[in-house]
Amino acid sequence: MPKLRIGLAQVNATVGDLAGNREKVVEWTMRAAEQGAGLVVFPEMMLTGYPVEDLALRASFVDASVQALHALAVELAGEGLDGVAVVLGYLDRRTDLAPRVGLPAGAPLDAAAVLHAGGVAATSAKHHLPNYGVFDEYRYFVPGDTVPVFRLPAAGAVSEPVDVAIAICEDLWQDGGPVAVCRQAGAGLLVVPNASPYERGKDDTRLELCRRRAGEAGATLAYVNMVGGQDELVFDGDSIIVAADGTLLARGPQFDEALVIADLTLPAADLARQPGSTPADAADGSQMRIERIELAAIPAPVPAGELTAPAAWPRLTDLAEVYGALVTGTRDYVHKNGFGSVVLGLSGGIDSALTATIAADAIGADRVHVVLMPSRYSSDHSVADAEDLVKRQGLHGRTVPIAPMVAGFDAELELDGLAAENLQSRIRGMILMSLSNAEGHLVLTTGNKSELAAGYSTMYGDSAGGYAPIKDVPKTLVWALARWRNEQAGQHGRQPPIPENSITKPPSAELAPGQLDTDSLPDYAVLDPLLDDYVEKDMGSAALVAAGYDAELVNRVIRMVDRAEYKRRQYPPGPKISAKNFGRDRRLPITNRWREPR
Amino acid sequence: MPKLRIGLAQVNATVGDLAGNREKVVEWTMRAAEQGAGLVVFPEMMLTGYPVEDLALRASFVDASVQALHALAVELAGEGLDGVAVVLGYLDRRTDLAPRVGLPAGAPLDAAAVLHAGGVAATSAKHHLPNYGVFDEYRYFVPGDTVPVFRLPAAGAVSEPVDVAIAICEDLWQDGGPVAVCRQAGAGLLVVPNASPYERGKDDTRLELCRRRAGEAGATLAYVNMVGGQDELVFDGDSIIVAADGTLLARGPQFDEALVIADLTLPAADLARQPGSTPADAADGSQMRIERIELAAIPAPVPAGELTAPAAWPRLTDLAEVYGALVTGTRDYVHKNGFGSVVLGLSGGIDSALTATIAADAIGADRVHVVLMPSRYSSDHSVADAEDLVKRQGLHGRTVPIAPMVAGFDAELELDGLAAENLQSRIRGMILMSLSNAEGHLVLTTGNKSELAAGYSTMYGDSAGGYAPIKDVPKTLVWALARWRNEQAGQHGRQPPIPENSITKPPSAELAPGQLDTDSLPDYAVLDPLLDDYVEKDMGSAALVAAGYDAELVNRVIRMVDRAEYKRRQYPPGPKISAKNFGRDRRLPITNRWREPR
Repeated sequence: MPKLRIGLAQVNATVGDLAGNREKVVEWTMRAAEQGAGLVVFPEMMLTGYPVEDLALRASFVDASVQALHALAVELAGEGLDGVAVVLGYLDRRTDLAPRVGLPAGAPLDAAAVLHAGGVAATSAKHHLPNYGVFDEYRYFVPGDTVPVFRLPAAGAVSEPVDVAIAICEDLWQDGGPVAVCRQAGAGLLVVPNASPYERGKDDTRLELCRRRAGEAGATLAYVNMVGGQDELVFDGDSIIVAADGTLLARGPQFDEALVIADLTLPAADLARQPGSTPADAADGSQMRIERIELAAIPAPVPAGELTAPAAWPRLTDLAEVYGALVTGTRDYVHKNGFGSVVLGLSGGIDSALTATIAADAIGADRVHVVLMPSRYSSDHSVADAEDLVKRQGLHGRTVPIAPMVAGFDAELELDGLAAENLQSRIRGMILMSLSNAEGHLVLTTGNKSELAAGYSTMYGDSAGGYAPIKDVPKTLVWALARWRNEQAGQHGRQPPIPENSITKPPSAELAPGQLDTDSLPDYAVLDPLLDDYVEKDMGSAALVAAGYDAELVNRVIRMVDRAEYKRRQYPPGPKISAKNFGRDRRLPITNRWREPR
Repeated sequence: MPKLRIGLAQVNATVGDLAGNREKVVEWTMRAAEQGAGLVVFPEMMLTGYPVEDLALRASFVDASVQALHALAVELAGEGLDGVAVVLGYLDRRTDLAPRVGLPAGAPLDAAAVLHAGGVAATSAKHHLPNYGVFDEYRYFVPGDTVPVFRLPAAGAVSEPVDVAIAICEDLWQDGGPVAVCRQAGAGLLVVPNASPYERGKDDTRLELCRRRAGEAGATLAYVNMVGGQDELVFDGDSIIVAADGTLLARGPQFDEALVIADLTLPAADLARQPGSTPADAADGSQMRIERIELAAIPAPVPAGELTAPAAWPRLTDLAEVYGALVTGTRDYVHKNGFGSVVLGLSGGIDSALTATIAADAIGADRVHVVLMPSRYSSDHSVADAEDLVKRQGLHGRTVPIAPMVAGFDAELELDGLAAENLQSRIRGMILMSLSNAEGHLVLTTGNKSELAAGYSTMYGDSAGGYAPIKDVPKTLVWALARWRNEQAGQHGRQPPIPENSITKPPSAELAPGQLDTDSLPDYAVLDPLLDDYVEKDMGSAALVAAGYDAELVNRVIRMVDRAEYKRRQYPPGPKISAKNFGRDRRLPITNRWREPR
């Protein structure tokens, strides 16, 4: 049976950076070819980054994507890579459809192409368009209705001809479509470019999905995912190759760029099947077409002996995975938006301590500036704990007491109660924004998901900033991550980065004397599961009470969550790690008189 | 030929307020019956308000909508209204479909029902689901595939039986579907519940659309639109009745609740067509079914003589229409969110002057609190103009100089340049938020669309607030609206509300000595058309230069707009008046390295 050395390039594309993304394709194809790969697969929308949102509707951007694709094919050949088949995602359009309301005349496509021999050998487009959760693809794209099946000639890495089909991301998650067509086409290999955002536990789901779809396709399945952060989304890589019988053949690392190289043994192409277009039943109520082509037989790389890279990278534990997502999202937001440093307020509490640690892990401690902003309500241990953290991690620390600013406001306004509490928080937000303006740092927001859900934050105060690394992390998980991070340091013989006292002390906003979070909120161990069931699982009050929650608590917490929608709307973005984050994932009206029945 | 007195109830529903919306249906049906209407039509999603966004996915909310519908039918009968046929929109579900990824097992429907004789006589659902601009309906709904045709019996207002079909909102905007089926069914009247948001000039488009679709349906067409504000959206009413030949028979007011009553002469129902379900070609590539039913012949209201209401309300001019949208959006955001008053900063400039005037027109001058917050850079005329406006309109004014707060920051931070400018703006934002916390006012943000596009605003400074009435109004339109509002006052013999000097002086943020907007921005007369072409029409740089704009200017302005995306993401909502607002309408990534070619 034919042998094929394949390379999965799970790389970090940047939205809109066509030149940079193209350069990555050349660079990684070269690396794969040096290792003897005859076929290299890149993620979905590799050329443009993902998601491009309304850029998909802009003619100039679609033009640029298509032009970049063709230029890339020529460039690859110029680098002597014309014998390598390169599959990658890009943005294209089709003009043969009746116009659809809301789309330009050339309807955008979430497309994939095969580059070979200096040209674009075949193209296709995603058939199943996700339009739920964070995805809005009906807004942008028309569905693809062809599956290209390209025959890799016997050359270099390929000992006998092999037929390869393409599906794109969501095509795996929904029934029928390219997977069903792949089986009808008799392809031996199905390659799947993806831009699949991280969610806690999604890696297990994905592996099972790949196994199932490989069986349905009757083919070896090579799943390539993007890595890196894009606003709220974090792509976690975790590329997978499974045989048609479900055997895991290779698996890439999580969150890191990597070239996953594998030697596949595949069924020989049925040479009786000739190039051309044939109809196929997509098994989802629609018709598709198989577009069969044969790549030119030009010299291809020859596998240079045995593989040295691991077939499967070690898997991360649950907490390591979440932490990896937060670090990746933060690092890429900072770098891709052109910042060289960040600034955040350090209270001595666990939220800001964890955020600072994530930031230091993401971009290096020497790029992290922290500000202690004590007030007369700040406890001694707060300042001590914050100073301890600065020392442990070697951050740039400074102290700006807020008393003079509070006095300035007291001179003109007589504030007490909530207004006086919020004032302190807002003065701190202003200090951070002022330092951002003066010194160019990105302000990191330190709020967690439990606070954001319950509205336990001050607009323009602790919620001020450009990026919120732990926005999607419930408080109980904040503690767990802090403990995990300290343990990791301990296991590697390093000093734990987070002072133990920041983890163990009762949480307090310290905006009033002796204040504790539990004055306003239920205990987080009680609150977090309830928030999860209400926010992420969308359970109504009756369902929550039936699930065993106290009816009064349900009523109180739901009211808090519902009333805080306006605050969330103005909150900065942060990395999504849950099944439903506050952002594109959960869309509720601000003006909303619906009250769950008591 | 049969005569029918119809009532179109263009009312203001509130999202989530099932009880309040239901009460409105009873109240307005009663009013229509008193005037002898045998058929009353309410807007789309009348029971739930529109758009309900992710509430559509919550089982408890769908349950509540369906229960409210059935209870409403009983209640109407209890009020002696069982002889009136009431058509209204609500949220329903269907359970007979294969599950769709992202939707609950009972897939939500944007539904309409006919209530009659104490029960739900027929239901249907929107066939065409808009998924562009501000609409995300593929996210929420499955398409309807039936058209109910209900036979109004000869009773009361109806002299001979008449067949009536239903289409919903987008069903008018796209080809085929219920309009085509209406013709096949031979219905004499097509009633269309809508929740169609205002856009400048859309009323003309709508009238033409109704005329065209009435012709295609071969029926008189009764279009009922919602009125009122819902977060970013403003529904403008403007209900329309046109005959099959395009003759305008009646037209409701813009932005105001109203009962549009009209006497229609309709073709008699073809009695050979019997109740039952028959397939129909939707002429859009799909199949639908005609569900024909006959309403019970029970006593119905009798038209009480001639109509006294106008057949067509006077039309608003372009500027009156825009101003009406801003006032409506602001009023409803304040009231529906439970605020009794607003607070805003008054600089003496035109943006805050117009915003204060809109607020006073929306909720009354005695509920509008304004704060003058002069700094050492504030000109004498600024303070004088602001004080003049307070006096003209009888607002609650107070002065809070910002010098003490600036001094408080100066004591700890050495800020100059942009940081010092932003500091002043943020101190003002904090003062307003403090007053909001202390006194319960909603903070209104005074920024205009040109500033927001160009990023000429300070996060947490002039952009702070809960609602931004002129967020979608370009600066040149701000001036035009101010002049128009003053002229209106003059024509009614009242004092113009806005000081002339606020309109005529060159715009300045007054954050530095002698500062003018034109130091940082092109002249607004040049900037605004370019912003419109880039932002609303999505023209790329080459297209803009080809359209005659200076290439350097295009490059500079595009850069400004692209770089300010992060600011817009945290901006408060405000009423949409343009074809594309900054909000749900325009969705661009923050992390975005795409640069239009120079």
